[in-house]
Amino acid sequence: MPLGERQGDKGESRYCGVETEFNDDMPHVLAFNLSSGGFDFVIAPLMDPTYRPSLVQKDSAGSGALPFAGSDLVMSPSQWSSHVVGKISSWIDLDSEDETMRMDSETTLKQEIAWASHLSLQACLLPSPKGTSCANYARCVNQILQGLSNMQLWLRIPLVKPDDDSANEKSDILVDSWETWNSFRLLCEHHSLLSVALDILGTLPSANSLGRWFGESVRAAIIHTEAFLTNARGYPCLSKRHQRLITGFFNHSIQIIISGKSVHPQANVAADASQNNSGEGLQRHALRPYLDYVAYLYQKMDPLPEQERFELGYRDFLQSPLQPLMDNLEAQTYETFEKDAMKYIQYQRAVSKALLDRVPDEEASTKTTVLMVVGAGRGPLVRASLQAAEETGRKLKVFAVEKNPNAVVTLHALVKLEGWENSVTIISSDMRHWNAPEKADILVSELLGSFGDNELSPECLDGAQRFLKEDGISIPSSYTSFLQPVTASKLHNDIKAHKDLVHFETAYVVKLHNVARLAPTQPVFTFTHPKHSDKETNQRYKKLQFMMPNDTGSAMVHGFAGYFDAVLYKDVHLGIEPSTATPNMFSWFAIFFPLRTPICLSPGSTLDVHFWRCCGPTKVWYEWSVTSPTSSPLHNTNGRSYWVGL
Amino acid sequence: MPLGERQGDKGESRYCGVETEFNDDMPHVLAFNLSSGGFDFVIAPLMDPTYRPSLVQKDSAGSGALPFAGSDLVMSPSQWSSHVVGKISSWIDLDSEDETMRMDSETTLKQEIAWASHLSLQACLLPSPKGTSCANYARCVNQILQGLSNMQLWLRIPLVKPDDDSANEKSDILVDSWETWNSFRLLCEHHSLLSVALDILGTLPSANSLGRWFGESVRAAIIHTEAFLTNARGYPCLSKRHQRLITGFFNHSIQIIISGKSVHPQANVAADASQNNSGEGLQRHALRPYLDYVAYLYQKMDPLPEQERFELGYRDFLQSPLQPLMDNLEAQTYETFEKDAMKYIQYQRAVSKALLDRVPDEEASTKTTVLMVVGAGRGPLVRASLQAAEETGRKLKVFAVEKNPNAVVTLHALVKLEGWENSVTIISSDMRHWNAPEKADILVSELLGSFGDNELSPECLDGAQRFLKEDGISIPSSYTSFLQPVTASKLHNDIKAHKDLVHFETAYVVKLHNVARLAPTQPVFTFTHPKHSDKETNQRYKKLQFMMPNDTGSAMVHGFAGYFDAVLYKDVHLGIEPSTATPNMFSWFAIFFPLRTPICLSPGSTLDVHFWRCCGPTKVWYEWSVTSPTSSPLHNTNGRSYWVGL
Repeated sequence: MPLGERQGDKGESRYCGVETEFNDDMPHVLAFNLSSGGFDFVIAPLMDPTYRPSLVQKDSAGSGALPFAGSDLVMSPSQWSSHVVGKISSWIDLDSEDETMRMDSETTLKQEIAWASHLSLQACLLPSPKGTSCANYARCVNQILQGLSNMQLWLRIPLVKPDDDSANEKSDILVDSWETWNSFRLLCEHHSLLSVALDILGTLPSANSLGRWFGESVRAAIIHTEAFLTNARGYPCLSKRHQRLITGFFNHSIQIIISGKSVHPQANVAADASQNNSGEGLQRHALRPYLDYVAYLYQKMDPLPEQERFELGYRDFLQSPLQPLMDNLEAQTYETFEKDAMKYIQYQRAVSKALLDRVPDEEASTKTTVLMVVGAGRGPLVRASLQAAEETGRKLKVFAVEKNPNAVVTLHALVKLEGWENSVTIISSDMRHWNAPEKADILVSELLGSFGDNELSPECLDGAQRFLKEDGISIPSSYTSFLQPVTASKLHNDIKAHKDLVHFETAYVVKLHNVARLAPTQPVFTFTHPKHSDKETNQRYKKLQFMMPNDTGSAMVHGFAGYFDAVLYKDVHLGIEPSTATPNMFSWFAIFFPLRTPICLSPGSTLDVHFWRCCGPTKVWYEWSVTSPTSSPLHNTNGRSYWVGL
Repeated sequence: MPLGERQGDKGESRYCGVETEFNDDMPHVLAFNLSSGGFDFVIAPLMDPTYRPSLVQKDSAGSGALPFAGSDLVMSPSQWSSHVVGKISSWIDLDSEDETMRMDSETTLKQEIAWASHLSLQACLLPSPKGTSCANYARCVNQILQGLSNMQLWLRIPLVKPDDDSANEKSDILVDSWETWNSFRLLCEHHSLLSVALDILGTLPSANSLGRWFGESVRAAIIHTEAFLTNARGYPCLSKRHQRLITGFFNHSIQIIISGKSVHPQANVAADASQNNSGEGLQRHALRPYLDYVAYLYQKMDPLPEQERFELGYRDFLQSPLQPLMDNLEAQTYETFEKDAMKYIQYQRAVSKALLDRVPDEEASTKTTVLMVVGAGRGPLVRASLQAAEETGRKLKVFAVEKNPNAVVTLHALVKLEGWENSVTIISSDMRHWNAPEKADILVSELLGSFGDNELSPECLDGAQRFLKEDGISIPSSYTSFLQPVTASKLHNDIKAHKDLVHFETAYVVKLHNVARLAPTQPVFTFTHPKHSDKETNQRYKKLQFMMPNDTGSAMVHGFAGYFDAVLYKDVHLGIEPSTATPNMFSWFAIFFPLRTPICLSPGSTLDVHFWRCCGPTKVWYEWSVTSPTSSPLHNTNGRSYWVGL
């Protein structure tokens, strides 16, 4: 039964499994662990662990049936597929020096996977590679993957990374297990059915090292009973660091599996006693206290905030950025954006400050400020501006300029409804071509994309600047884009599935979730309004150098997460750059720039990244590339794959 | 006029160019350098070097024409395109810290390339990147490359690589210039119109370092007059190492260009004097003695051996390997292979030795040896065997087994023509299925491919072994494949042009020429005949580790060159492994296994390579991958792209 109910969260991490020994009597295994133990599924060996193909008498009489655990008929198809994850024989070693061992391993692996497919299991657990080399293991698994359509393969990887000192001593044995995973999945080309089951032990690597895994395809975490501490009452519990990690797994739909023998016999005694009292006849499951503790952790998590629940469906889902200049937004889109109260509160604060700066108290009743909202949409910035005027007691004349004739209809209705006819003039025109009857004191716009300038705010405001007074104010007064390298294997796989170049040279709007942020963000392009000179181009070139924290270990860069921060006016800002993000704002997800070939960063290596903003007569586009540790191809040359139309 | 005539060689390196200063009078430039100087073409600046776009008065009156050298009308289109290579302004610096400089450089570069395209020039010479960073330069060139269809861009790269000591001292300035090229071409994704013009200076890097360039797309070598020494008579000449390098360029169709001022005035004085005596009025060209010396080097080269001349057309041309089991060879193919005298001499020697070992002198007249040629084709191995019997005075009974019914026709005619009816029996059958009437003492076959076992010799001989006596001899008795990593940008580009995965997972037969062999070969798979046990499989797995020589510097691995060596009998061998290759044999070119993504090797790094020979019920295939310095994808999983049918 699930660990608990969490509103809105249908993630896999509600379920908890248990690793079992080989047992021919699968119905019993299921009954004991599910009914008595309370687990949701078992990870059970599929074949007798003493079986070795090379020891089978070839010409022996007899059925020749392989020594599988049970037959397909001992349980219903849905019992097999819902409650059993196949555990591949852990003795196999495809990279052994011994050829017989290698051959036996390959034969057994293929037989067990074929059996698991026959049973329509959802997943099989592959044992960890035995040494540092895993090429032959990966070769065989990769051959198998080509024939699978649904069943997942979970490669078991111990969650260890030696610190630098111990690594030097016994460098052959202790490797960063992430490196093993990385080599394996590169050999298998990020196959979407290949993922990780992490073995959680008593000690944990550093937080940066752990963080890498949240960008990888981790499906399960196997917590060993030895990893548990003992609380005052003799029951199992986990260290604070382990608790935080498990909570992270819950938040990333990673299923928990309990493994090992009970090392908290006190808990069992107590439990048995209470069980006996309750009169149940069933044998108490020795691992039940561990499951109970995991369920307790699950249940004590804070509920998902409403906004997070709303955005669950958007997690790691790639969207093409809007083309607001070429296309007109739909009513539904306006509706959504207008609900973002925080954004308009910030605009109102900015307009208020600008009005106070521009009109001293003694002129408040005589001087009228001309404010133009360029890109007025259905009017939220008009409302915020009028509220700012009221709040500050300043007189305001508003022009609401909007190019979308459909939105203009709503604007007219709004003005009539609110009785703004005397202060608001509606202009149905593209701001780049409007012939304004007078010049503005304040220009208010909200043309920002997830990457700041990517919806062509600079080009639009260049056009609008004609009707701003020499000493006029633009709100926003500047905006800056930010980037950081990320591990994002899910996004990489989704892009790869298109099997073309275009999708690897496109930037996506995406609610980043299954992502590891590998270094702090750095600023990229800044635009300031109004411009000081006509000659200032909107082309930009920026070279960034990212340093990985030393304790991260190696990591894979699948691309770059992009954000923006805008200075609306003086100290009033608005943005999604993670360290300074405006709270409770939902108008923007991040942007993601993929790399055609993911780049592996070694510890201490630097990542040199180049970003260009290029401008042509009809479009604007970005190009990007990496030049260190190795040079990537230039992405999106001439905007061949992705561009924003003027 | 060309440097000379070399039989059969129509390579570009017959032509020699000269680098000139900016001169508005292009007809004069051409007349002076071609007619008077004897050069074949000029590398001439296309635009006034004082031009800077940012200094042009935007609103100035006047034509607004750009300060190009001449107009398109001053010479005929064919004069422009045959004799002028455009030299892009050398002041441009697209990676300058100064934005105005960057903008001016980009504008100028695009204007000059557009002008060169207008003139239909064959190539333009791009100045060297100024610093270690070249991302913005490459970004701009890559944009330009997308619009070019014929014109080549030659990136000028100085032929320097600091040795380790000096590199530490001033590491910012002295970098391995190959790294600059590598970064540039990776950014431009190995674009086929982008190549290298090497600047040859007075000192040269190590031989291994130089060797790398022969696998790159080098189109021209610019020899500076300062690189020349002075001979006893005051004339320019080159050091032995320079001479060897220039000869290497001649052999790789790399055009020579002379650059700089004459630093051998004595030679000119002498020349002028002799010119005056001959009464010619034209001014003697100051660089003529350098051209004369280069022509002298060209003319004193050994003529191309006949076989090399014959194979010129095959250089770096990718061929799909034969499928001799599935397909029958054509008469033309037999014809070609039968001309390979050296191969049959080796077979005759091997059969002779085997006959002498098998039949002591005292039994020579009584004991008849049964020899079976499996895969007899049109009979060359039958002939070699009969000659061996005659040479050793042994009695021989020959079965000639051949599956191709067309070749069997020829075999019958041959036996009749030669009067072999009493000693040769022709069997029209696949050796794997033939029901032999008796067992053989000696089994002779020639089923080897460029990679030894790749034409399924092991599988065929497994079938034939049924009719070999227990103590019988197989000729060949064993064969081994070999591999080495190579730089082969031409092959990489040819494969890339197919724009699919299949071609990057196929092995090709190819006469390797424009290739850098980066490390000594290593043995891969060995097959020995007869097999000792039925259980011995023909599957193989080999892990190879290549170390790069320390003085090579970094290098790019585009794939692996493969060879074989076969032990026919005892000390008689046959093969194409370069260090032990049988001389004057032309039946086999090398094999080439490509890498989907080329891998850059840093100095001192190791290259871990895995090769598998996999066997299925109907086909045999190879898989391959790299796991260090980074893991490649597994190539050709399940033989999805390339396989040999059984």
